[in-house]
This record gives sequence, structure tokens and C-alpha cells, in this order.
Amino acid sequence: MPAVVVIHEPVVGSRPSAEPFRIVPFDEPIVDAMNLGITRGDGIFESVGIRHGYVHEEEAHLTRFANSARILELPAPNADAYREAVRIGYRALGGGIADAYAKYVLTRGIEARESDPFGYAFVDVNPDWSRERTQGIRVVTLDRGYPLNVAQTSPWLLQGAKTLSYAVNRAAIREAARRGADDVVFTTTDGYALEGPTATLILRFGDAFVTPSPDFGVLHGTGQLGAYRWLAALGMRTEYRPVRAEELRQADQMWLVNSQRLAAPIRALDGEDVTIDRAFTDGMNEYLRDRRS
Amino acid sequence: MPAVVVIHEPVVGSRPSAEPFRIVPFDEPIVDAMNLGITRGDGIFESVGIRHGYVHEEEAHLTRFANSARILELPAPNADAYREAVRIGYRALGGGIADAYAKYVLTRGIEARESDPFGYAFVDVNPDWSRERTQGIRVVTLDRGYPLNVAQTSPWLLQGAKTLSYAVNRAAIREAARRGADDVVFTTTDGYALEGPTATLILRFGDAFVTPSPDFGVLHGTGQLGAYRWLAALGMRTEYRPVRAEELRQADQMWLVNSQRLAAPIRALDGEDVTIDRAFTDGMNEYLRDRRS
Repeated sequence: MPAVVVIHEPVVGSRPSAEPFRIVPFDEPIVDAMNLGITRGDGIFESVGIRHGYVHEEEAHLTRFANSARILELPAPNADAYREAVRIGYRALGGGIADAYAKYVLTRGIEARESDPFGYAFVDVNPDWSRERTQGIRVVTLDRGYPLNVAQTSPWLLQGAKTLSYAVNRAAIREAARRGADDVVFTTTDGYALEGPTATLILRFGDAFVTPSPDFGVLHGTGQLGAYRWLAALGMRTEYRPVRAEELRQADQMWLVNSQRLAAPIRALDGEDVTIDRAFTDGMNEYLRDRRS
Repeated sequence: MPAVVVIHEPVVGSRPSAEPFRIVPFDEPIVDAMNLGITRGDGIFESVGIRHGYVHEEEAHLTRFANSARILELPAPNADAYREAVRIGYRALGGGIADAYAKYVLTRGIEARESDPFGYAFVDVNPDWSRERTQGIRVVTLDRGYPLNVAQTSPWLLQGAKTLSYAVNRAAIREAARRGADDVVFTTTDGYALEGPTATLILRFGDAFVTPSPDFGVLHGTGQLGAYRWLAALGMRTEYRPVRAEELRQADQMWLVNSQRLAAPIRALDGEDVTIDRAFTDGMNEYLRDRRS
């Protein structure tokens, strides 16, 4: 059963609290009916992978969490409180879980009332993604409806923040299933590839690897960060830049990478087969699984 | 204090339940940490106005609620259960509240577990909006980032559904405040006016009234429905059609209309004064407040 840790320690700022954390069963309600996290999806989250108790890319996640808070004009989250909540939750899961994950959540608090932001974390066993990692995933491209530069022109659209308002991301995955696929690469109205609903895109052209630039309204993937370190150590070239949608058809290989599923090779794009390199992908996933960063 | 009613009566379908409803204090948690309503904004809502216990446009709200469920591929909500929850909540508020409002909420249930959708309603005293109704509101236009036909081309973007993923709507209102305004009219990338983050736009040109067509990814406003009935009874012409953004500068008068604030006349658009007709708007708001539909 997953473990839920409510953060009484202030989730923003750093005032001390008499009872900083409270472990609750996963099916004990902790969120008020009028919490803006539920009534408006008004808050932020992060998902982290945990290998034998070690939290992958913890600082990168906390940095991105703080960046999402800034975009939503929420106070900066108390990083120490989230670090500690995940450790408490992991211990509460029961000893020695090899593969776990955690989510951090921060909401704006209670609607129409002066209230502090509200935060919690939960930790659960990571499902088995070995089929996706080895056999690959079928992906479709879906229009995200926006032009590439929307994060620059229209920051109120919150592109580049990891918000609790993910209904569109969930609907895109249902649309993929309707088309016989497992996942999505979003594209822009002006013909660029962006990211998956819950993962970062990496393309391979020979010994060069490319991921869409996080300057243009995509999240800076923490799994992708790890993959780029592994690739750099192998002597490969890695690059961030805008990626045209038609490049998806020219790439030698492609992956969608995130903290829970790690690197899932793309084996079909819009119904067309794509080559996957099993040994190379296995190497990438072994690094991602065992990395200490 | 607001009253919260958790719906144990199935929120979808119509199987009977031993304890169909449960009234809980507004600050008693009712939502699990892993409920998709909070972790993904994956659910829908409606807000209704309640005058002396009478729920305005209840059937139109329930129809729109069911339509939002359909767009999100949620099972059809149990309309009777929501009707009853609002009545129970209103009684629990304490007798004889003249102006109240309620929200219906339906979420997809618990993440990564087979679970039923989860529903509740809450009822609270409506704040006093008389200043906005009589003095008017200052509005700015903000780009919604999408072309007009996005609901047709890309239904996974969920335009036209009233989802719990409203972080963008909240961010737009913060952007308006930063520009010295009270509210927003969203526009499309191809130059059309849409709606406010929480209200429907009505424009007046002489004796003709126009509202952006709900065929193009805007919600069909229930307050606007009432206003159109009042206008028709006065012999005015009313119309639904796509509205060009430049028409906002040509209109004689404009309103943003919703269930809680009713008709708020627009007194400034992007910093330019707009005429408001106090007596006419008062008449519209008296009708909206006292209507029996």
C-alpha cells in the first residue's frame, strides 16, 4: 500500500512546526473539498524515481518544482520538507523496496479563504515497466494547439510548469489508446515536436542526440538529464534545440524518458515502424536505474 | 461556514446506497492524496447560483455537467444525486440564505487503482458582487494560445469542457490584476474573442446582442442563457456566432455573465473606457437574480 505523508512543516518558508509530518494511510482523506488543488488544479507536482531508497535527480526535481512554483506565483516550496517527507514515506512503505517512486504535491490552499499553501508527498512501489523498456512503445503525434513560442508570448498559459492541471495530458493518452498506441508526442501548430504528456523526447541521428529545447515551453526532463550524462560519457554528442516534427520521421531511434518508466524506446510512430536498439536502450536504462544523481 | 456534502450515492449510475449522502464540515478532509481530481485535475465541475433556495438553470447546468463528462470520457454523472446534494447542503448552511452558490465536483477516482469516480458538492454564501454589477469591471484581452476551431480539430485539448484543470484560468486573472484589471476576455491566435476565465461574453450593438458561439470551444453560459431570455422578452435580437476580437472595440456595451456574479458590465477594455448602461444592467441583474429557471 502506498504511504502518504502530509507536510505540517510549512510547505513554504521554513518556520518550525511541533508535528512537522504525519503519515496517513493512502485511503484516508487529507484534502479539503474547497482546496484549490482539486477545485481548480491550482498547484504543482513532481514525480521522482527511488532506487533502493536513493532518490534520483533529487536536486533537479526540487529546482524544477521551485520553477513551477515561480511560474504559478506560488511561494517557493520548502525543499527540506519535501526531501524529508519522501524519506519518511519510503521507510513507511516497508523495508528494502528496490523500485519505488514518489510524488510531491503543492497546492495554493483553500479557495476564497486566507490559507497557507498545502503540501504532501506519497510514495509507492513503481509498477513493472520492463515490457515498455525492452519491447518499446507505439506513439502518435497529437497537436498541442499552441505555437512554439507560446511560453514567451503568453506566460499565463503556464507552459513549462508542471501543474496539477493535467486533464489534457490524460485526454491525449486516451486519444493515443483509441489510435492503438501507448503514448503521445505533442506537436505545435507551427510544426515542431515538443514532449510527451509525461515524458521527454530524445532523438538519435547517428552519434548525435537531440531533445527539444526547454526554452520553448517543455519541461526540462530529469530522466533526459541522466540519459545525456550517460551519452556524454560514451562520447556521443548531445544537443538541445527546437526539433521540427518532420525530424521524427528522419531519426534513427527515439525514446520517451521519464522518472518512473525511464527510457521507453519508440517502436512505432503514427503507425509506421521505428527501429529500436535493444542493447543500447538496455545500457541506457541500467545507467538510469543505478545512477547516483 | 460552507457545507460540504460527500455523495456516497453512486455519483455515476443509479444503484442505491445505504448512506447516500454525508454532510461534513468544510474543513474536514474528504479527498484522498491519490485522487486524480487533485493529482491530475482530472474531473469536472459546475457552479450554480441559488436564490432563496431556488437553484438557477439547474437543468442547463446538469446538461453541461454531463457534456463535460462526455468530453472527458467519464461516466454520466447521477443528476439526481447532485440535485439532492445541493439541497442538503443548502439546508445545512442554515435557514433562509438569500444568495448562495454551490459547486458540483466529479473526479475520475483514485490513480492507478480500479476505483469509482468520486463526487461531492459544496454550498456557501455568495459573496457580495454589487460593486461589480453596478460600477462594472475592467477587462483585458489575453491570448488563449489556440485557433478558433481547436475543439473540432483537437478534442483532446478539452476546450468546451468545464474541467478541474483551471490553473490557466487562474493565471489569466492574476495577469489581469498585474495589468490593473479585474477580469479577462480570452482571444484566439486567429483573432476571435472567446469568453472569460469564469464567465460568458455578451456584446451589444444597438438592439442586437451577440455572444461567441458555443460551437467553438467556449462553454454555453447558463447566466447568458438567462440574459438572452430577458433580452428576447424585451424584443431584442440575440445571436450566437463567432465574434472577431476587433468587434470588442465596436460594441456599444459588453458584459461578462456567470452564475455567481451574474452580469458584470465591462467599463474598460485594455485600458480604454467602455460605456456602461446602469439602468439596463440593473434590469438584467434583477431578472437573473429572481428568475425561476
